[in-house]
Amino acid sequence: MTDVVTLADGAGGKASRRLVEDLFLDELRNPLLEPLSDAALVSANGTRLAFTTDSYVVRPLVFPGGDIGELAVNGTVNDLAVSGSTPLALAAGFVIEEGFPLDELRAIVHSAGRAAAAAGVSVVAGDTKVVECGAADGLYITTAGIGLVDVRVELSPARVRPGDCVLVSGSIAEHGIAVMFARGDLHLELDVESDTAPVHVEAAALCALGDDLRWMRDPTRGGLATTLNELAWGAGASVLLQETAIPVREDVRAACELLGIDPLYVANEGKLVAVVAPQAVGATLAALGPHAALIGEVRADDVPLVLAQTPYGGTRIVDMLVGDPLPRIC
Amino acid sequence: MTDVVTLADGAGGKASRRLVEDLFLDELRNPLLEPLSDAALVSANGTRLAFTTDSYVVRPLVFPGGDIGELAVNGTVNDLAVSGSTPLALAAGFVIEEGFPLDELRAIVHSAGRAAAAAGVSVVAGDTKVVECGAADGLYITTAGIGLVDVRVELSPARVRPGDCVLVSGSIAEHGIAVMFARGDLHLELDVESDTAPVHVEAAALCALGDDLRWMRDPTRGGLATTLNELAWGAGASVLLQETAIPVREDVRAACELLGIDPLYVANEGKLVAVVAPQAVGATLAALGPHAALIGEVRADDVPLVLAQTPYGGTRIVDMLVGDPLPRIC
Repeated sequence: MTDVVTLADGAGGKASRRLVEDLFLDELRNPLLEPLSDAALVSANGTRLAFTTDSYVVRPLVFPGGDIGELAVNGTVNDLAVSGSTPLALAAGFVIEEGFPLDELRAIVHSAGRAAAAAGVSVVAGDTKVVECGAADGLYITTAGIGLVDVRVELSPARVRPGDCVLVSGSIAEHGIAVMFARGDLHLELDVESDTAPVHVEAAALCALGDDLRWMRDPTRGGLATTLNELAWGAGASVLLQETAIPVREDVRAACELLGIDPLYVANEGKLVAVVAPQAVGATLAALGPHAALIGEVRADDVPLVLAQTPYGGTRIVDMLVGDPLPRIC
Repeated sequence: MTDVVTLADGAGGKASRRLVEDLFLDELRNPLLEPLSDAALVSANGTRLAFTTDSYVVRPLVFPGGDIGELAVNGTVNDLAVSGSTPLALAAGFVIEEGFPLDELRAIVHSAGRAAAAAGVSVVAGDTKVVECGAADGLYITTAGIGLVDVRVELSPARVRPGDCVLVSGSIAEHGIAVMFARGDLHLELDVESDTAPVHVEAAALCALGDDLRWMRDPTRGGLATTLNELAWGAGASVLLQETAIPVREDVRAACELLGIDPLYVANEGKLVAVVAPQAVGATLAALGPHAALIGEVRADDVPLVLAQTPYGGTRIVDMLVGDPLPRIC
């Protein structure tokens, strides 16, 4: 680790994990934080709660398909949902740069409120701080959320077994690509929108599978590749992907090629990846809707890896994200 | 309201309230947010929870008596405590400027962990985002917290009645003054430390008063004056302060005079202000410890105001904070 924080430390990949494990977990170590999952499980008078937080620094603040307000709400709703909980309440902290236009702020807050309503939840607590011009880049939002844990499921990488199946709820890489192109640095246009959306309905439907549902996540920063690497480590088993089965829109795939980025590493903000028992694949596909796909399976391995079978019959190792090809994507 | 966000909008005073009510509350309106208290009350399976968030942008990050890590934890612990709840779990979101020294980050996270342990709670969830050099001022932290509400109390300005007594747990204005002098812009030295500390023990002791405890707050941004104005509005009654009874250290008072600031408007980060029934004053003073003081009383009034009886026998109106004499104090 270098002696200063780098952009890669915030990318959700290998450096991020190092910063989180070597520094934050080391200093704050406790049993509830240790799983480093999307939400911590907390018991309140015997009621099991999920509790999560995420900071949003996306640039630009408004992008095709959404804005930072909607993104911040959906992101926290999704962290609660994939932890097997029903979102109960949200909180939002705003750090605003002096001089930020009030009408833009109102549009973003409106969008956050609409996203919360769509997920059946409210922003019940908030805070606003203003910093001098130049001390922030417009606006940062940190959302936190509480969810009520579904007692029918026990979700953990430790419950994932060889033979289990990996499914994704729809096509990947759209959020990251939409935001990259929205920055205008590429001098290219692309008709792709962010997929920012709540996945609480799909997640709740999967909870009905009970024991057959092993684990869920929303593959945000670092993309599907990073999420599945974290799964492999936690499960002590490998994930074998069928590359051709992973849904990617043709224009998104072309944009990724142009940028030299593998779509597996690009952030999604409205997708869900689930591991289920083989007998639950049909029910999972039905619950996730028409865009869902079975993309791989878990297999026993001495060294847990994520592997992809390529269209050409070969197999490649899909490592975690290294560095940060797409900074400030969320 | 001007058409851009100003520093005064973040000061916790009149402009802040305008931004919060006219924009945030207007867009996000729901019954749990509407009281705009330090924490929202949420019900989970019949268990009453307090839920709160605060963003911290204090400058400098390290100041006499504390740092942003400790401040962010104590602030959220205190918002839970004065809402009549026992802190259960904390979450923390970090927005870090690229190039921030890792050893300084470690010291701040360590300090946050130590503050959490001192309050009997853990940071169970977190997030880290890194922004480019120049897109933040070192580090911002947003903490959120869940507390278990004490069933013995029902705290609300609406429960405050004429004749009730106002008490403070110790001397005021130390945090704001310590941070201002720590910036070095004044080219003056002062031996005052921030009072950043958890007040959960004192708050829990007051909860034993049951119905006699009407309302509690921690007078942070905007100081005691702003907190008591919010109380007066909420209660529809006036607060009459005895100015000479309000504990202020002599050197802090002198520093305030030098800066032309009334100590009533300066932020505290480890003090508690409580309104109790007259018969509970003795028990309250005993629970709050040797530095506590009875500083005023509530009285019926057609126009709710905060008034202070001056040492010279006159009475002055103590309005809410207007503008922002001390930006980025927390």
